[in-house]
Amino acid sequence: MGEVRWLSEPEAKAWRFYIVATLKLRHRLHRELSEAQQVSLIDYEVLVCLDTQADGRMRMTELANFLGSTKSRLSHQVGRVEDAGYVRRVPDPEDKRGVIAELTPAGRALLERAAPTHVQGVREHLIDLLTPQEQRVIGEAFERVYEHLNQLPD
Amino acid sequence: MGEVRWLSEPEAKAWRFYIVATLKLRHRLHRELSEAQQVSLIDYEVLVCLDTQADGRMRMTELANFLGSTKSRLSHQVGRVEDAGYVRRVPDPEDKRGVIAELTPAGRALLERAAPTHVQGVREHLIDLLTPQEQRVIGEAFERVYEHLNQLPD
Repeated sequence: MGEVRWLSEPEAKAWRFYIVATLKLRHRLHRELSEAQQVSLIDYEVLVCLDTQADGRMRMTELANFLGSTKSRLSHQVGRVEDAGYVRRVPDPEDKRGVIAELTPAGRALLERAAPTHVQGVREHLIDLLTPQEQRVIGEAFERVYEHLNQLPD
Repeated sequence: MGEVRWLSEPEAKAWRFYIVATLKLRHRLHRELSEAQQVSLIDYEVLVCLDTQADGRMRMTELANFLGSTKSRLSHQVGRVEDAGYVRRVPDPEDKRGVIAELTPAGRALLERAAPTHVQGVREHLIDLLTPQEQRVIGEAFERVYEHLNQLPD
């Protein structure tokens, strides 16, 4: 792979704090959600994804792509929220081998109940610690990163 | 919990792109590491943490705190890298009930072998997509978030 371009000091600082803060932040949000609402952060994120769709439905392959997950890992995860009654899986009418995940009324009710806990955590542990300028930079920078990752071949 | 302060449009944009880009980025780095070096991203991160210490040793409680993990989840994870021969667990001489995780020579060798793959991924999918100004803002902002999370009571 040729010469390794190691990170410079400012690059390493950006990377290191981004990573350790992110791990800690996710852990904290997970704890707050699971203590107050008995739902894990990753399960909650699955429901939020489905809720971005007008009909609360998404193909499993799309959902995996959106969550940065693999099909097999997602299938396990969706099985768990399905057992809890928050999601149901139905065959895709447009693709014989495809499966669609669909938010149930119980899933919507959980989202409504849990959203205040989640938003309060996101504010307290991230958003309210940032200036509007920093929020803008972070939004734009990670939008670029997201677009880049989306364009990579599989 | 009083009135919910929902996110404004720019706040929601920062949060949404940060989260979806981060999930996708971790998934990509994980895939590159596991394909080229047969090590998962989370296992690699455990080794990197230990390697930040001069003697390659860290208390399990410190390590859990650093990785934003719980003691039980970490114990499972460290068991896996211990089975692979990259880490060994030894009793803490200063705390009868404490356990120390220690990087083995095989763990150091893996880090040396895998670091070029990891750094190339971090550059290609994040750092090289950011301007120096954005790197600075992200480093400073997430340092503040990290300090905040570290000061929270358990």
